[in-house]
Amino acid sequence: MTLFRHAVLELAAYVPGAQPEGAYVKLNANENPYPPSPAVMRAVARASADAVRLYPDATARPVREAAALAYQVQADEVVVGNGSDDVLTMICRTFLDPGDRIAVVDPTYTLYETLAAIQDARTDVYPLEEDYQLPEALFSTRAKVTFLPYPNAQTGTLFPEQALRRLCEQQRGIVVIDEAYAPFAGLTMLPQIRNYGNLVVLRTLSKSHSLAGLRVGFGIARAEIIAALMKVKDSYNVNAVSQAAAIAALQDEDYVAEITAAIRATREWFAAQLNARGWTVYPSAANFVLTVPPQGRAAEIVRAARAGGYLLRRFDTPLLQDKVRISIGTDDQMRGLLACLEHCGVTA
Amino acid sequence: MTLFRHAVLELAAYVPGAQPEGAYVKLNANENPYPPSPAVMRAVARASADAVRLYPDATARPVREAAALAYQVQADEVVVGNGSDDVLTMICRTFLDPGDRIAVVDPTYTLYETLAAIQDARTDVYPLEEDYQLPEALFSTRAKVTFLPYPNAQTGTLFPEQALRRLCEQQRGIVVIDEAYAPFAGLTMLPQIRNYGNLVVLRTLSKSHSLAGLRVGFGIARAEIIAALMKVKDSYNVNAVSQAAAIAALQDEDYVAEITAAIRATREWFAAQLNARGWTVYPSAANFVLTVPPQGRAAEIVRAARAGGYLLRRFDTPLLQDKVRISIGTDDQMRGLLACLEHCGVTA
Repeated sequence: MTLFRHAVLELAAYVPGAQPEGAYVKLNANENPYPPSPAVMRAVARASADAVRLYPDATARPVREAAALAYQVQADEVVVGNGSDDVLTMICRTFLDPGDRIAVVDPTYTLYETLAAIQDARTDVYPLEEDYQLPEALFSTRAKVTFLPYPNAQTGTLFPEQALRRLCEQQRGIVVIDEAYAPFAGLTMLPQIRNYGNLVVLRTLSKSHSLAGLRVGFGIARAEIIAALMKVKDSYNVNAVSQAAAIAALQDEDYVAEITAAIRATREWFAAQLNARGWTVYPSAANFVLTVPPQGRAAEIVRAARAGGYLLRRFDTPLLQDKVRISIGTDDQMRGLLACLEHCGVTA
Repeated sequence: MTLFRHAVLELAAYVPGAQPEGAYVKLNANENPYPPSPAVMRAVARASADAVRLYPDATARPVREAAALAYQVQADEVVVGNGSDDVLTMICRTFLDPGDRIAVVDPTYTLYETLAAIQDARTDVYPLEEDYQLPEALFSTRAKVTFLPYPNAQTGTLFPEQALRRLCEQQRGIVVIDEAYAPFAGLTMLPQIRNYGNLVVLRTLSKSHSLAGLRVGFGIARAEIIAALMKVKDSYNVNAVSQAAAIAALQDEDYVAEITAAIRATREWFAAQLNARGWTVYPSAANFVLTVPPQGRAAEIVRAARAGGYLLRRFDTPLLQDKVRISIGTDDQMRGLLACLEHCGVTA
């Protein structure tokens, strides 16, 4: 007899992202190539002994207030997580009983299925259409929770807002719109929490605000849902230094606008460069591009780039194994990557 | 129809600890009155832009290695949590299916029951004996998990190690020994993970290392258990600044030994002072004392102390409502509290 839950025994072991030794240019985890706002670094450096010594604000109230201002909602419509992954966990623990079902598209962020499995809930997968748009079947599922990144993870696709609104209208369950990449698209479903009581929008400071190391994400929804999420969250889930940094990050909107614009410009330039070299590049509204290298050489290209000092990402799944996902770095980094690939002879 | 799980609807809303505005001396949350090691403050202040910008080490490997050295175990026998509360969540998600039962004593840390309830598991409560020692019934339960702080939360009681070993031997389920306060006792069950495959020892840097604001705790057990806990943990659960601070804290053993000795000395002196004033003080091996003020004036004393600038803690439960829990501060703070209570006329 084992003491472990069956749900945990059946769970695939977590595989951490590649963090090899050495000075690689990391274009594999959609991190922001620009440093955080100087105001963030000051907030961290000035952390007091009392901030370290005392328990943090349990509900992160000042962060909720700063987020409410930034996202134009009320503070009681915001919950703060130890990264938005933490908010995903809160959602699963709030809504998913054993045997419940969630709906996700494919390709998408794989953590949704893992977190559902921990709750002993089942995942129904709806493959995207050829152009990576939403399949009609997604609108009429009986899922307790539907998880959808906007723009989509892995593909960078921006779904029409009209389709997302129809999803909220037709779904009886919760609809989670994960806006990790939305700041790079300049579009958002945030105002729609007023119209749809089943909508939860996720935001994170990891990518747009260069704060991946400090773990700050948000769930934004009607106050009734937020109150339930707060009941299952870890008592002191966001640490004191991260809270101070998050407030500084949210308040420096100009800086974020500046680096976001730079990343978008680099993305368009880089996509054109790849196109000119015979690669297929899917339209992306995020801080990465999903690409199909010529002649089915995805795995070879990832290896060659790594040998040249650049980490790229390939997912070994049926829909993605012939593709390479490349995070958008600085202009210099992308120029360096192109030179590396040409030098290795894997691209023209 | 509601979308919320029944387990969540039935859950009592979380009540955050008192964090009132104003310059109070906080003797209500068992925080350490001494600042963290200077090495910790340097590690925080020197956090680089890359540490903030990039995802942290997903498994916190360098922290596990530092903890393994400090606790004299192997790195794969350690999991790092966003505070030890996070490790408690991992334990519940690894071992508790709906309808499973946990065993706890009373009084104890109340979070065990809350986390079990989120898993739809039930809690069997075993009241401590008159002298706060373990009741015989605890040894023959059929609990899937038994949670026991050592020394005990709220009371500060140190159970005989022999009793804890018997608990591990007689229990078929998991035995979690929560050593949040153990550094103040100078005793530990850590070496016993070699003898008992069902033993999980928890440690935290919050109290002994003055790191409550940064959220770092540990689960220590046989590698097989740790591997399962890692499967259900949040992917990036410990942030980059906390990881750096934790390593610095674990490596400055001399400093922790010094402030721990100071707190123990203050505790003994303060308990004697209260005794001399007619208070009952339970023997404590932790960084707080549980006291019974004369003439059943617990609530009045907490109010008076607050008016004088000192926050104390009273639990409104049958076993604790006539008692006051007082965290041990510096000598000056405890002298100030005694003067405040005398001035208010609530004690001699």
